[in-house]
Amino acid sequence: MKVSEVLHMNGGIGDSSYASNSLIQRKVIFMTKAIAEEAVSDVYCSMFPKTLCIADLGCSSGPNTLLVVTQTVKTVNKIRKKLCRQSSPEFQIYLNDLPGNDFNSIFRSLPRVQEELKEEIGSEFGPCFFNGVPGSFYSRLCPTSTLHFVHSSYSLMWLSQVPKGVEMNKENIYLASTSPPSVINAYYEQFQKDFSMFLKCRSEELVSGGRMVLTILGRKSEDPTSKECCYIWDLLAMALKQMVSEGLIEEEKLNSFGIPQYTPSPLELKAEVEKERSFAINRLEASEINWAACGNKLYSSDDSFKDDGYHVAKCMRSVAEPLLVRHFGESIMDKLFHKYGEILSDCMSKEETKFVNLTISMTKRE
Amino acid sequence: MKVSEVLHMNGGIGDSSYASNSLIQRKVIFMTKAIAEEAVSDVYCSMFPKTLCIADLGCSSGPNTLLVVTQTVKTVNKIRKKLCRQSSPEFQIYLNDLPGNDFNSIFRSLPRVQEELKEEIGSEFGPCFFNGVPGSFYSRLCPTSTLHFVHSSYSLMWLSQVPKGVEMNKENIYLASTSPPSVINAYYEQFQKDFSMFLKCRSEELVSGGRMVLTILGRKSEDPTSKECCYIWDLLAMALKQMVSEGLIEEEKLNSFGIPQYTPSPLELKAEVEKERSFAINRLEASEINWAACGNKLYSSDDSFKDDGYHVAKCMRSVAEPLLVRHFGESIMDKLFHKYGEILSDCMSKEETKFVNLTISMTKRE
Repeated sequence: MKVSEVLHMNGGIGDSSYASNSLIQRKVIFMTKAIAEEAVSDVYCSMFPKTLCIADLGCSSGPNTLLVVTQTVKTVNKIRKKLCRQSSPEFQIYLNDLPGNDFNSIFRSLPRVQEELKEEIGSEFGPCFFNGVPGSFYSRLCPTSTLHFVHSSYSLMWLSQVPKGVEMNKENIYLASTSPPSVINAYYEQFQKDFSMFLKCRSEELVSGGRMVLTILGRKSEDPTSKECCYIWDLLAMALKQMVSEGLIEEEKLNSFGIPQYTPSPLELKAEVEKERSFAINRLEASEINWAACGNKLYSSDDSFKDDGYHVAKCMRSVAEPLLVRHFGESIMDKLFHKYGEILSDCMSKEETKFVNLTISMTKRE
Repeated sequence: MKVSEVLHMNGGIGDSSYASNSLIQRKVIFMTKAIAEEAVSDVYCSMFPKTLCIADLGCSSGPNTLLVVTQTVKTVNKIRKKLCRQSSPEFQIYLNDLPGNDFNSIFRSLPRVQEELKEEIGSEFGPCFFNGVPGSFYSRLCPTSTLHFVHSSYSLMWLSQVPKGVEMNKENIYLASTSPPSVINAYYEQFQKDFSMFLKCRSEELVSGGRMVLTILGRKSEDPTSKECCYIWDLLAMALKQMVSEGLIEEEKLNSFGIPQYTPSPLELKAEVEKERSFAINRLEASEINWAACGNKLYSSDDSFKDDGYHVAKCMRSVAEPLLVRHFGESIMDKLFHKYGEILSDCMSKEETKFVNLTISMTKRE
């Protein structure tokens, strides 16, 4: 079975959820906090809805899952107090990810999170109703005209499937300087198809004047094969190629593998939004974060002596392993990520390496 | 820690979900299907909402979890066609159970269920949005005035906690002919408190004219210690007492154990609804189902040679084991349920034994 079919069977990318590299995600959420706050604040103050409906798309299941929605609740409460409005809205919160995501662990942590919210905010804030919504965000998830604020962080670069014709990309596993134009086009077309479907679905779900803030792994350059977005996968392809030369992976196997991701430029993002016409863009900003930010010194002190390459490999493993396992099998994973870690360390010691994030804030038109 | 505290910590009854004895539940759902259909049909035809919001409370996770909601969708579609209405409503479906319920397995079965619905109904029915809602139904679960139809089957006999003073009930684990009045009162008061809280929460969540159909394990007699509702637990207490006499359980341990359940009479149910005042009762019906209906010949042919006692013990084990394990430990469970099965077989060979179900259909007042 082709990777694309496996992906489709599973509703999209990966084993279970859209994102799982938690530390870098956390940093990105904090970096884009002000933009999300501004959007939430605007939508609340322009409508004062009785029930404020919030969706976090590609919420994953980990330490960051509830970060954005609890931030949102706190933001609204702060503004409400500032405006001396007595009654708080009710919060209807939709946590979305693919059906394979571990919703059980999110749900089991909710009683604690709700207690903490109550303690921090006090009892006067509105009740928060948490809902798990399993499904691909490239399809409808919520009833028409019900959402006030949609948020998604580090998920929308994942395509719904590997673009067709990936065999033409030879030993590359993502776009690269040696990718033929047909492959570059196929990736871009898949992005356009997926992202415009995403916009269409959300435009149906959001109320007029509703807001949406998306952060996507992207690039600054107009060249889709530029190093800023492709290098990280190039180095993984390098590790895979080493294993081909060692006879551990068949060459054909590598040639038929592709990463279902597309990291758009600001202009590409803007073009899709303008083509779809339902949204007005308020902000479109690029930011950078060092690969080294993957270093999870915050969480696992056992690993603190390890170098940056190790941490980046670990972080990328959490993202890419399910895809790789389905295609290459479980047995080579340790070796592969060990090699990848070495390659990353070497390259990170020689040059500065960064991820580019694009954050776009939009308003649903009347 | 007292059982009541453990229960409370876990948000209510059992390990994870309100009900798990699947075959008997399935039969009860079919027995009460006409009442649910009538209610759904009424609410749809009186409002024709753009989005029909349905909640199944205590949905558990098993073969029956999606039965009621898919029935509901089919019912609405049938009426819509009969009335020659072109456009189908959208369905917003809330599946509720305690946070410990296995929502992952529900969510993973959804793509298949949605496919089946599409095949059976055709493409012209409205989209169904499925949401998992973790929490106790003795608290608010959804925003104010949003639900059109609430359903709950075989869950509401579970109390939010074991009533206080259970030690006075001695070797009984539920109400029995030898229970002191103080214990009977404590059980009844806990039921009143819980059920009125349930009604209050649902009355806030339902729209005016919204409908609610509940099926509860109950009794016909006005005597809360009558055999029809207490016998099944009496026999479990008998097995536990045998183990006390064999030195396998301490007497004190047994004396401090109580089943957090209350099986009301039709009059008791009616009294609570009338006291709370938000609902008009349309129907209140009692039905009976043989204990032998637990026999799961339908699902596991390996067990088909086993006698009815074995099947009832197995069914009751799925319900009561989490509570028993927390109090008595894991090690005695096999022995306990073996004994219980023997006692059940003996008694079922001598007399006809039945569960009583109460089904109540209500309309939220203006």
